[in-house]
Amino acid sequence: MGKLMIVGIGPGNYENMTIRADRALAACDVIVGYHVYVDLVKDQYPGKEFLTTPMTKETQRCQMALDAAREGKTVAMVCSGDSGIYGMAALIYELRGDSNQPEIDVIPGLTAACSGGALLGAPLTHDFAVISLSDRLTSWEKIETRLDCAAKADLSMVLYNPASHGRPDHLRRACQILLRTLPEDRLCGVAQNIGREGENYRLMTLKELKDTKADMFSTVFIGNEMTKQIGQQMVTPRGYRDV
Amino acid sequence: MGKLMIVGIGPGNYENMTIRADRALAACDVIVGYHVYVDLVKDQYPGKEFLTTPMTKETQRCQMALDAAREGKTVAMVCSGDSGIYGMAALIYELRGDSNQPEIDVIPGLTAACSGGALLGAPLTHDFAVISLSDRLTSWEKIETRLDCAAKADLSMVLYNPASHGRPDHLRRACQILLRTLPEDRLCGVAQNIGREGENYRLMTLKELKDTKADMFSTVFIGNEMTKQIGQQMVTPRGYRDV
Repeated sequence: MGKLMIVGIGPGNYENMTIRADRALAACDVIVGYHVYVDLVKDQYPGKEFLTTPMTKETQRCQMALDAAREGKTVAMVCSGDSGIYGMAALIYELRGDSNQPEIDVIPGLTAACSGGALLGAPLTHDFAVISLSDRLTSWEKIETRLDCAAKADLSMVLYNPASHGRPDHLRRACQILLRTLPEDRLCGVAQNIGREGENYRLMTLKELKDTKADMFSTVFIGNEMTKQIGQQMVTPRGYRDV
Repeated sequence: MGKLMIVGIGPGNYENMTIRADRALAACDVIVGYHVYVDLVKDQYPGKEFLTTPMTKETQRCQMALDAAREGKTVAMVCSGDSGIYGMAALIYELRGDSNQPEIDVIPGLTAACSGGALLGAPLTHDFAVISLSDRLTSWEKIETRLDCAAKADLSMVLYNPASHGRPDHLRRACQILLRTLPEDRLCGVAQNIGREGENYRLMTLKELKDTKADMFSTVFIGNEMTKQIGQQMVTPRGYRDV
């Protein structure tokens, strides 16, 4: 019986991968994943067997990884960012069910809240919520409630999947919900292509964010009431200066 | 003029550090930090100058790091977990102010939401809130509002700093707040000493969590309404199986 490692590769560049993730990918026989993520690591780990599926085929992809491990191979399923946070670890545990074979090893990686936050400065020094704007697997009503509650609780926010071809207006709709509670000048930031070619970020107000185009490779940060711009950075103080 | 790198070292073990963090610590002249975190990396990077301060001296510690960089040294300020999330990056930007010297490089690391989540299984597959139970720099009233809102929004939660010597009952008080909204049998987990000696975790109900002792090295996970136990793991499905 082989082994299935679920590997969070972080934002995409080699340097932002953990040493554990690097060792797992170097040691495995097979790398399985969404083709965009497999392409990010392919050149670094030559001589592996690569198995890919398109974006919406998550169950098929995870089953493929479990099957390869059951055939005796050491398999690495790569996830962008973390292996658990919006990643494949849960689905793999579900598909394996009550069996304890094959052995599963969940290897964490930098989620965009960490890697994007570092790019923008320090927007998440204090309590925050991570919310995906994709309604493929969640009702929009639930997303709306979560945005509304996070705004009322003065939580900073990180919005994952702010837009895609199929839902170009989700970021605008989210901003409209937030603007019921938050002021128009609330500091926000958009990080794009973190750790990949074309990496960039912009800071702006919540009002400006409402009219900003985002894509599948964008991560959006909403400040809390303390968040401010220092130089080119988005910074949420925690209050250490006052003690 | 030197340079100040703020390095998230992850949970504490070498393997869970990113390649970028490892390279930064290998390249620097001086490692600055809270003494417990400096002790975690000391043996791995011999021959460095080490500067430490006690726990509540954050401003002094960051000023020390800025001063060393201004003297021309390459300085690494180590933070447990991420460099931004409850880390020192914001305070360093605040203390540097409008100057752009010394150069600052924020290097992200695995926060306990990622590393603890991987240990427990996959508790954070979906939207979640990260909330610290320390009221040293935040009013308890604000913490209470955040817990209450997160529960009402069906967000999974990660509770940082669930207890310390000075506030042994904060986890119990937090559970009492959550129990106004969430059922007693809501699945929860406590991870301890992640990536360090004595690493362990326990799964339990929210009712049991209320009477559980936690310490400064514990991270608490509260499931959402979909979270379930599969084998020994805490798993929050995202819904891929249904599409």
